[in-house]
Amino acid sequence: MTYTASVVGGTGFTGGELLRLLAGHPEFEIEQATSRSKKNKTVGHSHPNLRDLDLRFSDPTDLDSVDVLFAATPHGVSMERIDDFQAAADTVVDLSADFRLETEAQYDEWYDGHSRPELLAESEYALPELNRENLEGAELIASGGCNATATILGLLPLFENDVLSGDERIVVDVKVGSSEGGAGGGPASSHPERSGVVRPYAPTGHRHEAEIEQFLGTGVSFTAHSVDMIRGASATAHVFPDEPVSKGDLWGAYRGSYEDEPFVELVAGGGGVYRYPEPKAVAGTNRAEVGFELDPGNKRLVIFSAIDNMMKGSAGQAVHAANIALGIEETAGLEFQGLHPVGAP
Amino acid sequence: MTYTASVVGGTGFTGGELLRLLAGHPEFEIEQATSRSKKNKTVGHSHPNLRDLDLRFSDPTDLDSVDVLFAATPHGVSMERIDDFQAAADTVVDLSADFRLETEAQYDEWYDGHSRPELLAESEYALPELNRENLEGAELIASGGCNATATILGLLPLFENDVLSGDERIVVDVKVGSSEGGAGGGPASSHPERSGVVRPYAPTGHRHEAEIEQFLGTGVSFTAHSVDMIRGASATAHVFPDEPVSKGDLWGAYRGSYEDEPFVELVAGGGGVYRYPEPKAVAGTNRAEVGFELDPGNKRLVIFSAIDNMMKGSAGQAVHAANIALGIEETAGLEFQGLHPVGAP
Amino acid sequence: MTYTASVVGGTGFTGGELLRLLAGHPEFEIEQATSRSKKNKTVGHSHPNLRDLDLRFSDPTDLDSVDVLFAATPHGVSMERIDDFQAAADTVVDLSADFRLETEAQYDEWYDGHSRPELLAESEYALPELNRENLEGAELIASGGCNATATILGLLPLFENDVLSGDERIVVDVKVGSSEGGAGGGPASSHPERSGVVRPYAPTGHRHEAEIEQFLGTGVSFTAHSVDMIRGASATAHVFPDEPVSKGDLWGAYRGSYEDEPFVELVAGGGGVYRYPEPKAVAGTNRAEVGFELDPGNKRLVIFSAIDNMMKGSAGQAVHAANIALGIEETAGLEFQGLHPVGAP
Amino acid sequence: MTYTASVVGGTGFTGGELLRLLAGHPEFEIEQATSRSKKNKTVGHSHPNLRDLDLRFSDPTDLDSVDVLFAATPHGVSMERIDDFQAAADTVVDLSADFRLETEAQYDEWYDGHSRPELLAESEYALPELNRENLEGAELIASGGCNATATILGLLPLFENDVLSGDERIVVDVKVGSSEGGAGGGPASSHPERSGVVRPYAPTGHRHEAEIEQFLGTGVSFTAHSVDMIRGASATAHVFPDEPVSKGDLWGAYRGSYEDEPFVELVAGGGGVYRYPEPKAVAGTNRAEVGFELDPGNKRLVIFSAIDNMMKGSAGQAVHAANIALGIEETAGLEFQGLHPVGAP
Repeated sequence: MTYTASVVGGTGFTGGELLRLLAGHPEFEIEQATSRSKKNKTVGHSHPNLRDLDLRFSDPTDLDSVDVLFAATPHGVSMERIDDFQAAADTVVDLSADFRLETEAQYDEWYDGHSRPELLAESEYALPELNRENLEGAELIASGGCNATATILGLLPLFENDVLSGDERIVVDVKVGSSEGGAGGGPASSHPERSGVVRPYAPTGHRHEAEIEQFLGTGVSFTAHSVDMIRGASATAHVFPDEPVSKGDLWGAYRGSYEDEPFVELVAGGGGVYRYPEPKAVAGTNRAEVGFELDPGNKRLVIFSAIDNMMKGSAGQAVHAANIALGIEETAGLEFQGLHPVGAP
Repeated sequence: MTYTASVVGGTGFTGGELLRLLAGHPEFEIEQATSRSKKNKTVGHSHPNLRDLDLRFSDPTDLDSVDVLFAATPHGVSMERIDDFQAAADTVVDLSADFRLETEAQYDEWYDGHSRPELLAESEYALPELNRENLEGAELIASGGCNATATILGLLPLFENDVLSGDERIVVDVKVGSSEGGAGGGPASSHPERSGVVRPYAPTGHRHEAEIEQFLGTGVSFTAHSVDMIRGASATAHVFPDEPVSKGDLWGAYRGSYEDEPFVELVAGGGGVYRYPEPKAVAGTNRAEVGFELDPGNKRLVIFSAIDNMMKGSAGQAVHAANIALGIEETAGLEFQGLHPVGAP
Repeated sequence: MTYTASVVGGTGFTGGELLRLLAGHPEFEIEQATSRSKKNKTVGHSHPNLRDLDLRFSDPTDLDSVDVLFAATPHGVSMERIDDFQAAADTVVDLSADFRLETEAQYDEWYDGHSRPELLAESEYALPELNRENLEGAELIASGGCNATATILGLLPLFENDVLSGDERIVVDVKVGSSEGGAGGGPASSHPERSGVVRPYAPTGHRHEAEIEQFLGTGVSFTAHSVDMIRGASATAHVFPDEPVSKGDLWGAYRGSYEDEPFVELVAGGGGVYRYPEPKAVAGTNRAEVGFELDPGNKRLVIFSAIDNMMKGSAGQAVHAANIALGIEETAGLEFQGLHPVGAP
Repeated sequence: MTYTASVVGGTGFTGGELLRLLAGHPEFEIEQATSRSKKNKTVGHSHPNLRDLDLRFSDPTDLDSVDVLFAATPHGVSMERIDDFQAAADTVVDLSADFRLETEAQYDEWYDGHSRPELLAESEYALPELNRENLEGAELIASGGCNATATILGLLPLFENDVLSGDERIVVDVKVGSSEGGAGGGPASSHPERSGVVRPYAPTGHRHEAEIEQFLGTGVSFTAHSVDMIRGASATAHVFPDEPVSKGDLWGAYRGSYEDEPFVELVAGGGGVYRYPEPKAVAGTNRAEVGFELDPGNKRLVIFSAIDNMMKGSAGQAVHAANIALGIEETAGLEFQGLHPVGAP
């Protein structure tokens, strides 16, 4: 069966990634890719990997009827245009933060006032490993944020399997690539200033803390650093359980949570060069790597998780969610295994 | 229909890339991946992107019968083991330089003595855009070298369409990524010494000159530089035709040679960030980008070509050749379009 | 006044950096640079920036008498050769871990048995901001480790000014460049495998924890990641004081500890691209940047510190210590301000 | 003796580099650094390596009297403001292209109309290895362009020593770092789009051809590529002399031209990792590396030259020229030897 799909906001990095995935998807057919600034230009003008796609950007105010509409627009746009989006499509998958939080109070704490707060309760947050069942048949889906996804995937098994109760202190130190900053440019993201950095860009107060708290039921002490890669988010969680935990306990917990998950891979020790989760190893894929190490001397667990922020952290997760919503094979269009060697990339 | 395939030399970068392509190929099934040093270890131990492949390295001296055997071994190994390879497989695709040249005299000029020179005339060089018809049903295929492939693809239309006669001087200045050095390591390829370089690594006398001369019928003045990317080979050819050439002539020549080619894309001018061929735009794909610019003041043509040296420059080209040899759809298993943004990669 | 100085272990990255600093130092004159493997080769053969230095590596077993001997040898070498070193020089500055810890018991906990444990009590640890006075006239100096230096400099003011008592939990998440791995090479540090990484390389149990605990009086939960830079160590400490702390308190504490320090710069907020400590901003210099941010919601302080691991983390610190030991101006030979833009670098 | 110096255009990369050099120069004292956009902000706000400089940007229209004024402004500004500059300073060193060419006709061929053409004949081009004597006492100096400097330094000995007559065909293939694009930003220079590139940015018609032709007396076929480094310009010249040339001839020619030059180093073969000129080896320094290789089969010489485009290619060359103009020791303020390892950088 073939479903029609449109991408609103097709010139950005996330929009391009959605178009790439939809073009290669066995059950989706691209109807429209919209762009205000590059109307009538080819998709390949913005995304050189898509030059052979016979598609030009169309006006975002003139939306065709489709089965699924993906909104890859800046935060705040979807809440303004949601009626148009829902008029055009049975299923709307929004990749911004507009519909990720459950209540207006939460939203107001972290963002600047929501114009359609009544929709917050209706939308479904998409992190399939967390809440796959809610996504089946969903009509408004808020695809999870990249750093939140990495963090939640790392910590979830500890909560699901009672290693943590929610009262413990959790430090999450995240390293992200430059694609998180988007296609816009600006001095801080120019190559001379951005290359080779370890740059604290969200020392405290990162908005993804809200998503994390909403789903784990506890806040985390979150800090993000920009590092020299393009794609990738790596989260290192430092966790202090009240009771001692063995390596066997951890393997049990993580296998229990993830053994049937098609997009989560456990990587914890072993030999060779790649012994723990790394963004390099998942670049271009929808895979999350999750792993851990024990530090008995400090009564600490160190949890590592790594994703491609453009894939499992945004476009891939959105397509995964759409697959579930429409009853398509979950992995359809998301089978790319990644490259080796590759530069994260 | 399903064909069985083995990869001899599976731990190297090229071997891993072959395994990735075969694992995702609709008509191939992997029989064996061999490794002397990592026998019985999983393929994922060497190639983190292939961790979900249920396959362990086997002994290279114990080869099963298969339809196709890909040899991703260092130069010199295939000529020693060719009888074993041909005993095991109907079709042997060798990725080394052992069978690329046509005569023993050529081989001796550039390499160190061939142990099976009688096979040179029997083997078919694989650069499908050059000699596709020879590959159909071929039993011994020598997959073209990365720098030779980039160079030949850039220049071929000039010869096929009589822009050049073969008497003109041609300078080819190539820039390559670190994966060309292989998985071995060593001080010059260590990260601190290799990052950020523009390093002449083959100022003169690069062995790929032999392949280029063999197929273009004329020598080129070839120089290669290492630059800071992992995958990618970019060739800039500076060409001085005897007669003036117009942009229209060039478009005609290149379209004439390549308009039906599934893996060649013409990129010459246009707008946006990506206006000429770049390795970044083809990273992870089997695509070659080819383009050109005129410099009337210097009576010069500048020809650009870019490939992923691991794909169109080795493993992808080898699978492409095997597809042709066996009568499979040419693009089967090679459809990946590449990523944007990506770091070459 | 001119002092003579030798470098034992001159081919490594740290040895080369020592030679560079000594060659440009107004009061040192290089007597010998030793190398077992490159005996009689020029220093420029290993270090291209030092090609104009008229100096060849000499045999490490044949040491001239000098005022200061710098030992840039692998861990374990100095303890074996310390009698030779002390016979040759009045002042020995060792850059390995051999003499950093105070007691044999500490050493045995983190390393593998000390052959000269009686010298542990005699040696002086060199982190001048911590214990400058001990270094004056010192005869055996153990230059502090790179990650320990970054961590201690970040946290020291909190202990000196009673923001922390030593009972609080401290998480230190460190990101380091590839030069920490030394000049040797190996698969994990090859350019294709090492580029673009965020790679946990010491998830738990890093030996620098010993130095940190020795001087701060409390253990830290330490994890190190390799990232894509060559020089640089960046430490992010997540600290949870029992009592609320204001920004003014922090400025007071850090200014109190560091306002007279020539090599520590406070960078905390402000405008422009560089708002917190970054390795990029100190690359090539002996400067440490230290800064902080408050996270009242999580009752957390986030402390950032950044150094060039080759300079303030090893060779620069060693020269600084030698300056103090001999009564030379502290900043002599260490005035280089660094470059902008630069790639960390 | 101390001379006063001002930098007009202090926030750009070149302006920052000038300020760094002047701050460390034994005979210069910085009077003013101007900026229209960052007036009254500290120099450290733009250049993190200069945070300890007690200096704020002043208004560019209010210039103090100084001995030397360095203009690091975009092309076209200096010709408009030259009367102000010359009123303020005895010696003006302009780093733009405004005064590099000798005649209005040349200027018009490559640029867009000169407002003060009569000054073209009065200004002295600064490439000291070419025309040191003209710079002594010069009042208006046009510091040579980065790519022109790299190219001319590579080829000059061939002309000075009659290896080339000027009738031969010369191909110059240049690779440059991202700092050549300046501090401005923009999509093509954003980190995600600029990392890992080999991007033809000036396939033909680069304006530096004008400078090269002016001084070598012959045109060159010039093509420039952006590669992944920040600082650095590397020129590879492919040259075809009419008569055979031996390696000894070349050593003779290059030694003859450069043996007394403090900032040119011959690097041609030899052992170790760094066997030919590389930008990495000169990053941060005012040094140019020049080397060569013979290709008898193609009757070709390959000439390599490498500089730091911010130093020998702009700010360093400008200070060098000012040193000569004022009779200061040529190497004053330019002694930094560079770092190893370093990332070009």
